Amino acid sequence: MANFLTDNEDLLYYVEKGFDWDAIASVTERDFTLEGGHANAEEAKAFYRSVLEMVGEFAAEEIAPYAAEIDRKGVHLEDGEVVMNDRLVRIFDRIRELDLHGLAVPRELGGMNAPVSLYFMNSEMLARADVSTMAHHGFHGGMAMAALYFSILEGSTRVDPRKGTIVETRFRDMIEEIVRGEAWGCMDITEPDAGSDMGALRCVGEQDEHGNWFVSGEKIFITSGHGKWHFVIARTEKAAGPDDLAAGLRGLSMFLVPTYRENEKGERERVVTLSRVEEKLGHHGSATCGLVFDRAPAYLIGRRGEGFKYMLVLMNNARIGVGFECLGISEAAYRLAKQYASERRSMGKPIERHEMIAAYLDEMELDVRSIRALAVTAAYHEELAQKHDLRLRLDPDLGEQARAHHQTEAKKHKAAARRLTPLLKYYAAEKAVEICRLALQIHGGNGYITEYAPERLLRDALVMPIYEGTSQIQSLMAMKDTMGAILKNPQEFVKRSAQARWRTVSARDPLEKRVARLQLLGQNAQQHLLLRTAGDKMKGLRDRPISDWTEQLTRSWDPKRDFAFAMLHAERLTRLLTDIAIAEIFLDQSQLHPERRELLERHLERAEPRCKMLYEEISTRGQRLIEELARSEAESGAAS
Amino acid sequence: MANFLTDNEDLLYYVEKGFDWDAIASVTERDFTLEGGHANAEEAKAFYRSVLEMVGEFAAEEIAPYAAEIDRKGVHLEDGEVVMNDRLVRIFDRIRELDLHGLAVPRELGGMNAPVSLYFMNSEMLARADVSTMAHHGFHGGMAMAALYFSILEGSTRVDPRKGTIVETRFRDMIEEIVRGEAWGCMDITEPDAGSDMGALRCVGEQDEHGNWFVSGEKIFITSGHGKWHFVIARTEKAAGPDDLAAGLRGLSMFLVPTYRENEKGERERVVTLSRVEEKLGHHGSATCGLVFDRAPAYLIGRRGEGFKYMLVLMNNARIGVGFECLGISEAAYRLAKQYASERRSMGKPIERHEMIAAYLDEMELDVRSIRALAVTAAYHEELAQKHDLRLRLDPDLGEQARAHHQTEAKKHKAAARRLTPLLKYYAAEKAVEICRLALQIHGGNGYITEYAPERLLRDALVMPIYEGTSQIQSLMAMKDTMGAILKNPQEFVKRSAQARWRTVSARDPLEKRVARLQLLGQNAQQHLLLRTAGDKMKGLRDRPISDWTEQLTRSWDPKRDFAFAMLHAERLTRLLTDIAIAEIFLDQSQLHPERRELLERHLERAEPRCKMLYEEISTRGQRLIEELARSEAESGAAS
Repeated sequence: MANFLTDNEDLLYYVEKGFDWDAIASVTERDFTLEGGHANAEEAKAFYRSVLEMVGEFAAEEIAPYAAEIDRKGVHLEDGEVVMNDRLVRIFDRIRELDLHGLAVPRELGGMNAPVSLYFMNSEMLARADVSTMAHHGFHGGMAMAALYFSILEGSTRVDPRKGTIVETRFRDMIEEIVRGEAWGCMDITEPDAGSDMGALRCVGEQDEHGNWFVSGEKIFITSGHGKWHFVIARTEKAAGPDDLAAGLRGLSMFLVPTYRENEKGERERVVTLSRVEEKLGHHGSATCGLVFDRAPAYLIGRRGEGFKYMLVLMNNARIGVGFECLGISEAAYRLAKQYASERRSMGKPIERHEMIAAYLDEMELDVRSIRALAVTAAYHEELAQKHDLRLRLDPDLGEQARAHHQTEAKKHKAAARRLTPLLKYYAAEKAVEICRLALQIHGGNGYITEYAPERLLRDALVMPIYEGTSQIQSLMAMKDTMGAILKNPQEFVKRSAQARWRTVSARDPLEKRVARLQLLGQNAQQHLLLRTAGDKMKGLRDRPISDWTEQLTRSWDPKRDFAFAMLHAERLTRLLTDIAIAEIFLDQSQLHPERRELLERHLERAEPRCKMLYEEISTRGQRLIEELARSEAESGAAS
Repeated sequence: MANFLTDNEDLLYYVEKGFDWDAIASVTERDFTLEGGHANAEEAKAFYRSVLEMVGEFAAEEIAPYAAEIDRKGVHLEDGEVVMNDRLVRIFDRIRELDLHGLAVPRELGGMNAPVSLYFMNSEMLARADVSTMAHHGFHGGMAMAALYFSILEGSTRVDPRKGTIVETRFRDMIEEIVRGEAWGCMDITEPDAGSDMGALRCVGEQDEHGNWFVSGEKIFITSGHGKWHFVIARTEKAAGPDDLAAGLRGLSMFLVPTYRENEKGERERVVTLSRVEEKLGHHGSATCGLVFDRAPAYLIGRRGEGFKYMLVLMNNARIGVGFECLGISEAAYRLAKQYASERRSMGKPIERHEMIAAYLDEMELDVRSIRALAVTAAYHEELAQKHDLRLRLDPDLGEQARAHHQTEAKKHKAAARRLTPLLKYYAAEKAVEICRLALQIHGGNGYITEYAPERLLRDALVMPIYEGTSQIQSLMAMKDTMGAILKNPQEFVKRSAQARWRTVSARDPLEKRVARLQLLGQNAQQHLLLRTAGDKMKGLRDRPISDWTEQLTRSWDPKRDFAFAMLHAERLTRLLTDIAIAEIFLDQSQLHPERRELLERHLERAEPRCKMLYEEISTRGQRLIEELARSEAESGAAS
């Protein structure tokens, strides 16, 4: 039997030793005190492994063979409802039979209380089989988990403090319906004139005299938007004016909107209208919907104006999910190319032994493992951050020491997840496109015809750098976080630079030295951007100690104007930071498992010239364009 | 009226002053002595300009608006014939009315005797409107010109030496039929198991006892293979064994095979069967055919075993043609992105003023102009090489001095065309994919749906790096030519390096200094590859003067084994050489037209860090992979 777990040595590394399952299992199982839960880490891990094996076989045997069929048949809008093709329907029947939708949901809500990280690893294998199936799958369990988490955040979930189990939760019906495989949800953010720019969202949430909420407006590009439950972000507070961008975000609230209501005759009728299903380049098994809300009854989540906060929770998880989706499709494309290259002969030998093709395959394989390293590490930190936070929220009886422990852990892992998530989303998506294109190219003429799989994979991959926040948005986030952290705490930045510099000379391991040199390059790039960023204001700073900068910089700071230079180089900085993050992860792994050194070496070999170029570009380019933009800005200001 | 010439400042630069039309017109019009020809360069240029304006308007008004329709409707196989869609049929009716098929064909064969370079510039504009229309168009005039050139090469064309006009030519029927717009041809090279590897071609050409030739076998991926005339490459001589690669190429001959014959009842019947029309990712208006030859009557061109030589003629022109095709689609994608970015607003301004988007657009625009610089320059040299060669062949009465002049010119331009052609094909194709993908990305979610054009452009672009010789094949050709030239004449290489080094310090123009530094980097990369290339054999050379190398190196040289290191880095070397070639062209232009300096500066700004990285990669990477390949080669040898 084909199995996408057992045929994958690098994934097995994480399943077997490269991932701290003990830490995850312990906090997920409330230190193994949950009723009906695993008794200890070993038992938990054995269960996780068995789930992974089952999903690995399911993906390989029951989804992968039908990916081309799913692509060909797609999904269609008929009489106002989306019709999924018969193959997809059968696959989702099987997923329900396998009880996968409730995998990460607590047992008392019908689930299996497995780690979210396990769910993500499954996602990789499902995505390797077919990304649009994986994506639609994600809107089941993922939305159930989001509903639970939202309820906990807003305080509408009650727990038995002794047992640690959920006694009451606001969205129980939705969650249990999804766990049973009878429904799914979606997140409705994008609008026709507001994609990356969420301050411009125009859907409104209004309250009637009885305090009931209603949502009106149009949403587009809603993945799996043909389900029963909608998390909708809508405007409840007006902005002061077009330039009041902050108010643009502060004025948003999060709602849960059910798709249907019962009419007077007791029949189910739509209140959220499906206006269209997009004809897309790829991702055909996933319905991308246009939705119209016309005073649809809605439930406010949390408080008015907190919409952006709740959305970030959804988005962070979704972005990590896309990272695993990209990982799966990249793994599929790499294997397809490798297989073809081992069979196709030219000039008397299989083309995998032609130098250039061998180099592509070598690089693709390394890239796939780099994506996996980033994805698994981001998922790990995100899960620990959330779970430690949940312990604090759900366990009022925690002792002071335990509370302090969970607080420290939550904070530490949150910072790590926040750092890695945009890097993962950016890198995995860009690499997925690149790897799929290489797979197509390696197939030569065969790659261009629909009879072979690479063109489908490439079509599917091209949505990755767009949805759940474009590559450009990820770059801006990574840049702003990085620069913001320096402004907030320049001493820490100076300390880290000094440490990296010290390790470039003192580390005993030559690979560690090389990693330190990369880190230093990254820090120099950041410093350069900071010095260039604020323009005139910064000029006075050059001769002052960096520790004085905070005050100077944060005084009358206008990030919109002052960050222009850093925004221009945001993508380059992101690529540099990603190469560094990958090097750090492989270095950590090498120190525990010497067999991973080879991977670190291969990564450094590639990252070093690349990072030097990025640093040179950041430190020498951009002046001309910034001046041109300032000119055109001034002209447009003068004209208006 | 929209016009793809007059709206394009950079193209107009070449039409108006950046291209030596005088040289081209003069040799094309036999120094303006042709009967019925242009009286002088001014008259010729006025005619060329009017043709370009007409085609510019035709492309913009009568093709571009229908590109999406052509893509959607495609072409289909019905009852053994390809059915082109009604829109394509109408467009080709118009092309016939406009008399474009005979544009570059001599007047005495029904054409207008325009330069091939003019034809190529038209191609850019047609491709900007729709690449598959442009591609199919190319198999009309292009094949007519090939037929004429083949006949001249083999000596079956007779000229009136006084008038310089063609009196008799072997393929007159075919040429005149094409000029009238009643037929087109194709070139049948690829086979199911032989793509890039032409030594493996298996179609056979056989002679019966009367000396008649017949071709049998299967060809695939034949663009516009549904026409009346086939240039077919087939094996007439057997190779000594599977490793006899040279004989693999020497055993090929070129044939002309008509698609139809008249049967006993005087009806037209197919002898070349259309076995399939591929379902492709894009390029839907262009038929990609599978063909079966079953003892199809054929006409041998030239002599047995000369097939590869004739094929190179076809291929060089086809590759330059693809360069212009890539240019057109890149221009279209850039403009689409620019337009969208100027209209789409986010964060209070059009996204074209967001730093990252502005940088993409700036780079795309520069890339398009770089492709054009390469394409136009390659076309110029290729045309002059061919036309000077034709003068020598067709004009037996040339004086000794004139003969020497044409010989020198032909040789000089042939070398330049040979150097630029693979760089153009490589670079233009890779950039076309990159630019189309960026256009899609800049469109965000809209880029991924079929309602907007970028996804179609990207689908169309993805064939460019595959057909007419993959990007990998272009890289290998560029590398082999470059390394071969050094081996043949190391003194010349040393001299050029010294000159570049001298210019890095002595040039008065700082931009010229920077170009010289790039050239030097390229030469250092070549030297490194040469030193690494031959492995052990080279070790003894390090301390010898480079002028001794030829003898040492060419003794017992096995390019297959000895070039492994250079093959591994062929693509990087090609990218480096291309950046240098572009810099050189822009420098030449700057010296004549100072307004082009800005372009050179922008190119250098980008090329410098990139080339440094390429040099570093070439000079530090690859050892591990070469060793792995050698090991697997040895193992496979041991196993077999």
